[in-house]
Amino acid sequence: MSEIGLPRRLGAEALGTAFLLATVVGSGIMGERLADGNVALALLGNTIATGAILVVLILVFGPLSGAHFNPAVTLAFTLRRELPPGTALAYVAAQLAGGIAGVVVAHVMFEMPVLSTSVNVRAGPAQWVSEFVATFGLLATILGCLKYRAEAIPFAVGLYITAGYWFTASTSFANPSVTVARTLTDSFSGIRPIDAPGFIIAQLIAAAACVVVFRWLHGGGEGSQSK
Amino acid sequence: MSEIGLPRRLGAEALGTAFLLATVVGSGIMGERLADGNVALALLGNTIATGAILVVLILVFGPLSGAHFNPAVTLAFTLRRELPPGTALAYVAAQLAGGIAGVVVAHVMFEMPVLSTSVNVRAGPAQWVSEFVATFGLLATILGCLKYRAEAIPFAVGLYITAGYWFTASTSFANPSVTVARTLTDSFSGIRPIDAPGFIIAQLIAAAACVVVFRWLHGGGEGSQSK
Amino acid sequence: MSEIGLPRRLGAEALGTAFLLATVVGSGIMGERLADGNVALALLGNTIATGAILVVLILVFGPLSGAHFNPAVTLAFTLRRELPPGTALAYVAAQLAGGIAGVVVAHVMFEMPVLSTSVNVRAGPAQWVSEFVATFGLLATILGCLKYRAEAIPFAVGLYITAGYWFTASTSFANPSVTVARTLTDSFSGIRPIDAPGFIIAQLIAAAACVVVFRWLHGGGEGSQSK
Amino acid sequence: MSEIGLPRRLGAEALGTAFLLATVVGSGIMGERLADGNVALALLGNTIATGAILVVLILVFGPLSGAHFNPAVTLAFTLRRELPPGTALAYVAAQLAGGIAGVVVAHVMFEMPVLSTSVNVRAGPAQWVSEFVATFGLLATILGCLKYRAEAIPFAVGLYITAGYWFTASTSFANPSVTVARTLTDSFSGIRPIDAPGFIIAQLIAAAACVVVFRWLHGGGEGSQSK
Repeated sequence: MSEIGLPRRLGAEALGTAFLLATVVGSGIMGERLADGNVALALLGNTIATGAILVVLILVFGPLSGAHFNPAVTLAFTLRRELPPGTALAYVAAQLAGGIAGVVVAHVMFEMPVLSTSVNVRAGPAQWVSEFVATFGLLATILGCLKYRAEAIPFAVGLYITAGYWFTASTSFANPSVTVARTLTDSFSGIRPIDAPGFIIAQLIAAAACVVVFRWLHGGGEGSQSK
Repeated sequence: MSEIGLPRRLGAEALGTAFLLATVVGSGIMGERLADGNVALALLGNTIATGAILVVLILVFGPLSGAHFNPAVTLAFTLRRELPPGTALAYVAAQLAGGIAGVVVAHVMFEMPVLSTSVNVRAGPAQWVSEFVATFGLLATILGCLKYRAEAIPFAVGLYITAGYWFTASTSFANPSVTVARTLTDSFSGIRPIDAPGFIIAQLIAAAACVVVFRWLHGGGEGSQSK
Repeated sequence: MSEIGLPRRLGAEALGTAFLLATVVGSGIMGERLADGNVALALLGNTIATGAILVVLILVFGPLSGAHFNPAVTLAFTLRRELPPGTALAYVAAQLAGGIAGVVVAHVMFEMPVLSTSVNVRAGPAQWVSEFVATFGLLATILGCLKYRAEAIPFAVGLYITAGYWFTASTSFANPSVTVARTLTDSFSGIRPIDAPGFIIAQLIAAAACVVVFRWLHGGGEGSQSK
Repeated sequence: MSEIGLPRRLGAEALGTAFLLATVVGSGIMGERLADGNVALALLGNTIATGAILVVLILVFGPLSGAHFNPAVTLAFTLRRELPPGTALAYVAAQLAGGIAGVVVAHVMFEMPVLSTSVNVRAGPAQWVSEFVATFGLLATILGCLKYRAEAIPFAVGLYITAGYWFTASTSFANPSVTVARTLTDSFSGIRPIDAPGFIIAQLIAAAACVVVFRWLHGGGEGSQSK
């Protein structure tokens, strides 16, 4: 990837994260509006859209920026010394800006105020454990595939989040930039600003923990990477 | 593709677009009839069928005609100088004819009048922004995969439209020939004729915009294309 | 495939068709029992199970027998002179026997009479057109992928039938052995015995028509087959 | 795989089975809570999550331990003399421990008692036949793909279980360690402890039967394995 300049890589991160958030927030609004009060149906629409777009976005932007869209993923690659800290910070900034832009786009498409503040309570230890599990599994998906079947990552990540929407009590945010952006929507997929830090801390700890576990599983010192 | 003659390529475009429209309109009718008033369920059936058939049609007709089925896609390849304008016009004609034929087939299968006029209102800036976003994303999917993972295009496009049904307020027509054909069905997936021009303009602008953005992202002047 | 003896190939056809019918009939019963009268939900469960099992069965049995499971497919390959008529007849017998066995297995699993007679009316020109379209599309899927991307056939067929359940008014039987077997179940997926011949005739005509159309699309005389 | 030490392989089996059970149990709870009494919708959420996570877990852990997560699979490979009995026993222990840990994690995420006892009745010949069919099909999926298309196994297994949730009356446990773990949750996906032995016996018989049938289908003595 070294031949692609930083501005393009940041453009890819911002544009990809914008589409991701437009999808998460937009499909949440669509699901809620159409589902007639049945939350399972609303979540189903939200799930299918998010899982599908992740496959697409990683296929499209993966070769440009790595398609992180996620400070927890960027942290993991920084801890593995595969990304310099300065670049990592620029990635995170692009992800945050892109995420907020995506929420704005979703709101414009669904004729809502450009930005608003979520009132959805998502707090407490069970939610934090959920985010730890969700993010640990996301990183396991990425690091596990990266070593042996890198070309499957887009599909694996899309499927993982599809599952995560249903098997974790928090619906698997698993992403600090997604968490921040979702504080800014007063709709199905939102999270109260005050609840964001708990999510983000759990996510970052999980990412670091997963790097350690997979260093052992994949054979300590080497850090080799087939393909 | 140069060894396949134009008549066969146009046949592929027409047949593929016919199946696409038969699916969009047919599954919309099926969903509406079975879903007992729950629009989320009707849209779910519509979504699954459309996403799935797109994968199939691009696998089957891609090697023959490129499987555009879509004047916005044909415009993009013309702007990239990968398709001569004369061929592009013939493609668009085949797409329009195929699309209308597909609506007729759907109506015959579901015992409705052969053609009718939609009364579904789909107008206003939020809808146009939706179609801009939807088409920009569709072209990003195609151009992004084309450069680095062309063999994934059928799956990526199917998944993109699966997401698009839920994350855009317009359910992602993202295709002028689909838009024209859907004016001719008085059912779930229809659009009023008077609303079609707004959709089509937004779609064509988005296709052109995406070509420009990806020319930058993929590295300006070259236009090279790794198989 | 020539190195695999006919008994094993027939075993593969019978076992595969049995699993296919157990899935079609079993998931129809499950869907109907759980969906609380909502037919869209019942069909959704039926769809997901059938589409998914088809991918699996073609992956597993394709290398052994070609994974036809379907006299219309066997007819098409006989017309293309890729299967001797004698072998084709044996295939059809195995498919019919396997299909009926699969219905029996589904009934045993769901505590219903071992075999029964369907009372679901599926008749009239719109249904026959539906079966023509459904089977034409199925053969297009197979013949189209076979020439250019044979390894995608399992996924393409599974996705095609996923779409077919929703975009055709008949839910895409598209298979004479499936049609015969489904006369023997008094449940969601059944079809009255008297309605079977109309379906089967439409299916066989469509298979033959598709062979002709793709002979033209793929370039008449050659019949070459990459890979 | 011989170069990966047993502790790492057991870690992979335990961690993978834990994620599998967290998903089965967690998504069952989520589905039940959100579906407003509609069991089909609850099962749909349960199905999508389980099918999706299986693809991911086999992609991630397959290269490390083979990604059995299932004593019936481990039995089959032992019968095929591809796994020494001592290693097989260690695998089963890791699967059981991981499975129970996964149930605990699901309960913590959804604020339920750490472990409980299921009261869901799943007994009688129809259920046992269901588990025989479910497990026979799962092994057919694995053994069939292993010989000809090993790289498709993760997707095939995920899709097979997606179908199995709907076409068998038992929703396809098809796995003794999953069965044991699911006795420990008083929720949607549970099974009474007293009903577990019947399931497990049917599963193990089916695994052995499938090994025999595929030895014949794939050509008796050789046991060769392409790729």
